[in-house]
Amino acid sequence: MLKGPTGCGKTRFVEHMAWRLGRPLVTVSCHDDLTASDLVGRFLIRHDETVWQDGPLTRAVREGAICYLDEVVEARQDTIVVLHPLTDYRRMLPIDRTGETVEAAPGFQLVISYNPGYQRMLKDLKPSTRQRFVAIELGFPEPPAEAAIVARESGVDGGTAVALVELAGRVRSLRDRGLAEVPSTRLLVAAGRLVASGIGVREACNAAVIAPLSDDPTLLGAMRELVDAMFP
Amino acid sequence: MLKGPTGCGKTRFVEHMAWRLGRPLVTVSCHDDLTASDLVGRFLIRHDETVWQDGPLTRAVREGAICYLDEVVEARQDTIVVLHPLTDYRRMLPIDRTGETVEAAPGFQLVISYNPGYQRMLKDLKPSTRQRFVAIELGFPEPPAEAAIVARESGVDGGTAVALVELAGRVRSLRDRGLAEVPSTRLLVAAGRLVASGIGVREACNAAVIAPLSDDPTLLGAMRELVDAMFP
Amino acid sequence: MLKGPTGCGKTRFVEHMAWRLGRPLVTVSCHDDLTASDLVGRFLIRHDETVWQDGPLTRAVREGAICYLDEVVEARQDTIVVLHPLTDYRRMLPIDRTGETVEAAPGFQLVISYNPGYQRMLKDLKPSTRQRFVAIELGFPEPPAEAAIVARESGVDGGTAVALVELAGRVRSLRDRGLAEVPSTRLLVAAGRLVASGIGVREACNAAVIAPLSDDPTLLGAMRELVDAMFP
Amino acid sequence: MLKGPTGCGKTRFVEHMAWRLGRPLVTVSCHDDLTASDLVGRFLIRHDETVWQDGPLTRAVREGAICYLDEVVEARQDTIVVLHPLTDYRRMLPIDRTGETVEAAPGFQLVISYNPGYQRMLKDLKPSTRQRFVAIELGFPEPPAEAAIVARESGVDGGTAVALVELAGRVRSLRDRGLAEVPSTRLLVAAGRLVASGIGVREACNAAVIAPLSDDPTLLGAMRELVDAMFP
Amino acid sequence: MLKGPTGCGKTRFVEHMAWRLGRPLVTVSCHDDLTASDLVGRFLIRHDETVWQDGPLTRAVREGAICYLDEVVEARQDTIVVLHPLTDYRRMLPIDRTGETVEAAPGFQLVISYNPGYQRMLKDLKPSTRQRFVAIELGFPEPPAEAAIVARESGVDGGTAVALVELAGRVRSLRDRGLAEVPSTRLLVAAGRLVASGIGVREACNAAVIAPLSDDPTLLGAMRELVDAMFP
Amino acid sequence: MLKGPTGCGKTRFVEHMAWRLGRPLVTVSCHDDLTASDLVGRFLIRHDETVWQDGPLTRAVREGAICYLDEVVEARQDTIVVLHPLTDYRRMLPIDRTGETVEAAPGFQLVISYNPGYQRMLKDLKPSTRQRFVAIELGFPEPPAEAAIVARESGVDGGTAVALVELAGRVRSLRDRGLAEVPSTRLLVAAGRLVASGIGVREACNAAVIAPLSDDPTLLGAMRELVDAMFP
Repeated sequence: MLKGPTGCGKTRFVEHMAWRLGRPLVTVSCHDDLTASDLVGRFLIRHDETVWQDGPLTRAVREGAICYLDEVVEARQDTIVVLHPLTDYRRMLPIDRTGETVEAAPGFQLVISYNPGYQRMLKDLKPSTRQRFVAIELGFPEPPAEAAIVARESGVDGGTAVALVELAGRVRSLRDRGLAEVPSTRLLVAAGRLVASGIGVREACNAAVIAPLSDDPTLLGAMRELVDAMFP
Repeated sequence: MLKGPTGCGKTRFVEHMAWRLGRPLVTVSCHDDLTASDLVGRFLIRHDETVWQDGPLTRAVREGAICYLDEVVEARQDTIVVLHPLTDYRRMLPIDRTGETVEAAPGFQLVISYNPGYQRMLKDLKPSTRQRFVAIELGFPEPPAEAAIVARESGVDGGTAVALVELAGRVRSLRDRGLAEVPSTRLLVAAGRLVASGIGVREACNAAVIAPLSDDPTLLGAMRELVDAMFP
Repeated sequence: MLKGPTGCGKTRFVEHMAWRLGRPLVTVSCHDDLTASDLVGRFLIRHDETVWQDGPLTRAVREGAICYLDEVVEARQDTIVVLHPLTDYRRMLPIDRTGETVEAAPGFQLVISYNPGYQRMLKDLKPSTRQRFVAIELGFPEPPAEAAIVARESGVDGGTAVALVELAGRVRSLRDRGLAEVPSTRLLVAAGRLVASGIGVREACNAAVIAPLSDDPTLLGAMRELVDAMFP
Repeated sequence: MLKGPTGCGKTRFVEHMAWRLGRPLVTVSCHDDLTASDLVGRFLIRHDETVWQDGPLTRAVREGAICYLDEVVEARQDTIVVLHPLTDYRRMLPIDRTGETVEAAPGFQLVISYNPGYQRMLKDLKPSTRQRFVAIELGFPEPPAEAAIVARESGVDGGTAVALVELAGRVRSLRDRGLAEVPSTRLLVAAGRLVASGIGVREACNAAVIAPLSDDPTLLGAMRELVDAMFP
Repeated sequence: MLKGPTGCGKTRFVEHMAWRLGRPLVTVSCHDDLTASDLVGRFLIRHDETVWQDGPLTRAVREGAICYLDEVVEARQDTIVVLHPLTDYRRMLPIDRTGETVEAAPGFQLVISYNPGYQRMLKDLKPSTRQRFVAIELGFPEPPAEAAIVARESGVDGGTAVALVELAGRVRSLRDRGLAEVPSTRLLVAAGRLVASGIGVREACNAAVIAPLSDDPTLLGAMRELVDAMFP
Repeated sequence: MLKGPTGCGKTRFVEHMAWRLGRPLVTVSCHDDLTASDLVGRFLIRHDETVWQDGPLTRAVREGAICYLDEVVEARQDTIVVLHPLTDYRRMLPIDRTGETVEAAPGFQLVISYNPGYQRMLKDLKPSTRQRFVAIELGFPEPPAEAAIVARESGVDGGTAVALVELAGRVRSLRDRGLAEVPSTRLLVAAGRLVASGIGVREACNAAVIAPLSDDPTLLGAMRELVDAMFP
């Protein structure tokens, strides 16, 4: 279970681990309307026959892949519950529709992620689900590391990268003043790319770092002042 | 991500950019009942066969078109979430139903728009979605430019166009007095067309600029007084 | 966009205009469960084939007819949103399911109506929809005109028609005392027909004008007193 | 439009009028889940063909029957709205699914009923529906008439019938003390039948008149005291 | 209409009456998702043909059976409403889907039951439904009778049966102190069986009588004290 | 009916009893969207034929297996209600769709479980369901037993196992200070495995015991202090 703010690199971390472990990776973006069938599989009608088609979870279970459920808190209960027999000593996936029970191939792993700072009211993981996972808490990288990432990913020079990370730090400190979400490393890379392509740094920060965060005029003004102070 | 009030020209702006960039444009008007299948595609039964039919998003991804999702805030979570792998470094669209993963053709771009002044309660873009876009804020054009647009689009003479824009300015200032939405350039063009076709300017303003904005008798009265003062 | 109370003649007005303009008229009564497919069309299975069947809106768009959406406020968002590309400079109807885009034939017009006095909570037209229409506000006819209509439509004599219209005026003034809806011209015609068929005028007014308006004993009593005072 | 309490004879009245007018009668009990298709008709698959099957309303429209919609307030909006073009000067039923428009045969009549004393919150007939009907208000019969009905329908002797009606009068007066619904003539007939079949009158009144009305111990006690006082 | 607490023998009573009357019995457990089609029947596709299949209610109507709808309050309105024409002088079941009207065979009877002490908020039988039934109120048997039942059904000796019934009486008196539901005769039989199979009486009472009633530690403690006092 | 906190071994207990009794076990994880059809069975279309397929409950009933419904409180009413005729003296499963009534084979048993400490608002078992079961209350094992389990399941040495159990005891006592769920034996086994694979004990406790329990910074801090105090 990976906990961390949006854009801090959860997906990249899982992809890196899959590469390090030499295992295939199956990624599913969870949402409100994701059903258990979307994960496990369904019967399709093909040329007058009904054919069973494995869903992404079932494929991962059979192949011993790493299955990554992104933003799992969004999924409905029935999606979550199919994970239970896979995540205790049983390590198996019963498929109700076919009556088959698939034993997880060696190497199968289940990774889920969510953003604890973003509150979806009345929807949370049940204790019986949470207690099936070991948790790793991720945050934004330390400033020097984050600046190195921004420089490499965006192609901007080191000084600008450091300045962008410093701006991010100041904006992130607005959290206590009502900013619902703080700018991610991803936004800094986006701003860096705009700068690298020839757009002015203030304009780039406004378009890529500030404007995506809020529609509130007061908060937008406060953040723009931070940009102006940073890049006079 | 284009932010701006209704009728300020967001769709026209995207069409212009598509023309400037020489790329095909795929436009989708989002709404409450738009499902991920509507965007991505679905299986249809044709002559005893099930045939996969790409949705508009998938077509745009394959062709390297610009895909424009109008009023994206209206769409359901599952629609939004399919955009995620397309809008980070992966630039790919996994199609769960077929198991295919479509890599975005060069030139593919995703543009979304919404009206931050129009509040849809309890429905907003999640931070993890917002932070995947660079934002451009649009407003109504400066009065001289808006008057030129009104004159050219409606065929009304320049003086009337200026007067219509001035009326719009006064009505827009009623926002603080409870007017939920202010008249757009589109409404001014509609009024101009009525005038150009021979209808009196006061009648045209009432029908095209005032009456569409509200059903509240007090607000309607206040706006009609502005019309009367403007065109005595 | 026609705004006006129930039974004031909105549908008749549209029918008259269609006749004057010599154009076919397609009328759709909107409701809660009207889907975009009901308007645009759907695939039907016929003899082992799937056949596309145009909905009423698509037929009107192809034929250049006037399409009249009655009580449009009742419809769901997805119904409303399909109207957007038809109601700006594009004048086209994209049909997602077939991938076809139908250009509106010359003469195609879209008319919508609603009753601003009847409040459907939490359901209103979005600004981006309202600002695509020119609005005409309709009310009940002036008393002499209304009496002439009642006389001609119901076959009642002129004096009774005048009296019925006067009764309606008095009942309509009860609006401020809690009457949710006032009697329409349609109800007066119904009362006139009962009188013309031999039923006493007080009985006719109670059955056709008073009783349909409310179930509240106090309001019913007040209205019956008005009838008794009018026709002693 | 028939208004009246449950069990006062609305359905019997319509059946009698159909018999008097010599017209066929089509009765539909409305409920929450009654869709427009249930009324108008639907496509069914029969032997590899899709066949259209008229619903009860369409059958009545074609045959010139009286169509009686019982407890119409229960029905959903889409059911109600299909009645609109049938209940104004147009007298026609457009069937969206087939594109057919059925003109009402001569003699077709639409009767709706509801119980104004039974409140279904947030669900009421819209004014635009109510104002399409002439209303008849029904109540319980006068005591001598009600006693005659009870005697004839149940086979009980005249004295008992009079006593049952008097008991009903006393129970009905409890309405102001919190009794949600008062005993109908139907309940008195049920009690009379029990008596006629040999059950004691107090037991019959408790089982057929009192117990069906409430589960509230206080109200049940008060009503049982009325029975005991009536039949000591 | 049978009213009574859970486990007091409503189903057994109906089965006994069916046996006494020599009529077949059709039992339906009602629930939230029981549709009218579940009761009346539906079209099924069999070997390229659509075949109508009677539901349990229709079968009972045709055969003159007793149809018993258990916990009828749980059912949805559309289920309830199909009962109306069966439960007045018409005694017939119109099947909308087939257009057939089935007359009830002689001996057909409809029995419904519910538990008035268990409140399902906002869901109750409508007056127009309640007033179609004669009501019988059932409670728990008198202590000696209940002890005899417990002894015979569980195989426990008479003294223990009397003690179990006395315990039940004390627990039932906790109702005023917040116990939502009191122990039924069924629970006493279950406890008796445990005792008869060799389990200690205190353990049996805790497992079969106390623990099923509540999760509230205070109430559980109070009830366990009653057990300890009863069987020291 | 098994009551107990998450991860205390309810599923293992049922599996052990099935093994002791030599009976097959059918386990169903209940959730919000589990329908009665999912349990009982459904018609599937196979090669132009409709074939009935038993659901897991029906299979268990036919084979005389133990059917275990895990977290039964999550299931919908229609799922629950199909259990009723199976759980009284009738011991039968009526299958509405086929008209078949399956008598439970000897040895068939129904076990349900839920976690009384985890509150699902407005959703609880109805009394008429609860009173069909004998209840067994399970808790966490006594410390020495729990330490033995942790040592054997995780491969950690006995001293660490004892320390992990002591930590669990301290964290469990935080329940009164707002911790919604306490760490289960399962979490201790997970921590033990991490330690056994070479990870430091503090890091292992944070990842496997503390972080899965809460996202609240204050609670997380308090729990980490307990870890630091335990393993300095």
